[in-house]
Amino acid sequence: MDPPQHRHAVVLFSGGLDSTTLLWIARSQGFDVTALLFRYGQRHAVEVEHAVALAGALGVDYRIQDLDLRAIGGSALTSDEVAVPKDRPEEEIGASVIPATYVPARNTIFLSFALAWAEVLGAADVFIGVNALDYSGYPDCRPEYIEAFERVARLATRTGTEGGVSLRIRTPLIDKSKAEIIRWGLQLGVDYSSTWSCYAPVFRGGIPLACGRCDSCFLRKKGFRDACVPDPTRYA
Amino acid sequence: MDPPQHRHAVVLFSGGLDSTTLLWIARSQGFDVTALLFRYGQRHAVEVEHAVALAGALGVDYRIQDLDLRAIGGSALTSDEVAVPKDRPEEEIGASVIPATYVPARNTIFLSFALAWAEVLGAADVFIGVNALDYSGYPDCRPEYIEAFERVARLATRTGTEGGVSLRIRTPLIDKSKAEIIRWGLQLGVDYSSTWSCYAPVFRGGIPLACGRCDSCFLRKKGFRDACVPDPTRYA
Repeated sequence: MDPPQHRHAVVLFSGGLDSTTLLWIARSQGFDVTALLFRYGQRHAVEVEHAVALAGALGVDYRIQDLDLRAIGGSALTSDEVAVPKDRPEEEIGASVIPATYVPARNTIFLSFALAWAEVLGAADVFIGVNALDYSGYPDCRPEYIEAFERVARLATRTGTEGGVSLRIRTPLIDKSKAEIIRWGLQLGVDYSSTWSCYAPVFRGGIPLACGRCDSCFLRKKGFRDACVPDPTRYA
Repeated sequence: MDPPQHRHAVVLFSGGLDSTTLLWIARSQGFDVTALLFRYGQRHAVEVEHAVALAGALGVDYRIQDLDLRAIGGSALTSDEVAVPKDRPEEEIGASVIPATYVPARNTIFLSFALAWAEVLGAADVFIGVNALDYSGYPDCRPEYIEAFERVARLATRTGTEGGVSLRIRTPLIDKSKAEIIRWGLQLGVDYSSTWSCYAPVFRGGIPLACGRCDSCFLRKKGFRDACVPDPTRYA
């Protein structure tokens, strides 16, 4: 990875384990970072609150983009009519069947906004924390998808057309296991107790706790276990 | 063009000359149509009002997607700080310089939402009225851009991954001149008096009139002139 000094990057940031590690990686590689958060009507609004708090605590520039994905629905994360799957057997998670938490075209929508922001901010790099190893089987997390979007990014924009910098979609986590991501993050100083992964928080006295049973909790727990480090998450 | 019967298509629809013709073309080809309108904070809100009225009058299913592109800015159409260019010489319009009305990543954002809607509605076809001939030099209107996005569409979604229908981005206007589009639309019965193209409407007694001086008005006027048919537009 070339070490760019004072180059501006847009980082897709949800406040989760992967994208928080991603933010630290981008900074460690010398990028000036703008974190892009989406308030898209996700069931777990806790996610956005954590992301805003985290971005503020880190002192990074951040923008919140409002989108209405609930109008579209079609996912357990954006529709109350679809339940978040819980306690799925390990062999089902990451298998070829796409689960109910898949949000139609979400990464394409997120990347397209990142592209617009990158163009306006003069950033030539977009970081996205997709992961094709310990993941839930979403089609828009695979390397061939990212490559295809990078081509779109280069053809779509003023920057890519009038010459000069060529947009890059950076995916440093794509071939890493959850345990490897956690170890990398800990080396960089990430405090995972303030990250949020759970799809279906449980509230106790107004305090959100991770359910410990959705795919996202499952992969997170397994990651800490495989990395042989204590899991700081507060589960219900 | 293969004539699919009772196939569902999502049509990106702004109520302008091109996308209204597009809607009629999709219907004439036997598609069940859902028109997708964007309320994105565009300077010319008149556009959205016309589009809603038109979709209603045509009796097509339509969805309005709210997006905040003003937060991003960077264009004369989404920022009050950038002026809409007027009275540009003909040789500048469509030249290699991208004008101030270019909205960063707009077609990528629009297509990504169309993708999400297509997936939820079970549509395998997305129509977009891009035009690489009589156009304003936007990078995201070129055939190579559309091809790249189609690849993204196929890789991004549940539909494209679990087999079955493969998503197609249909661009029947891409190689047509404005005059050819108008002639095609008239054959199909489009009433162009109720379409809206102008970027910078002028209000007289609360009634919006087309400015007649922006790129969009220029190309529209020229189209009717070249097609040798009367221009029904009410200019200021």
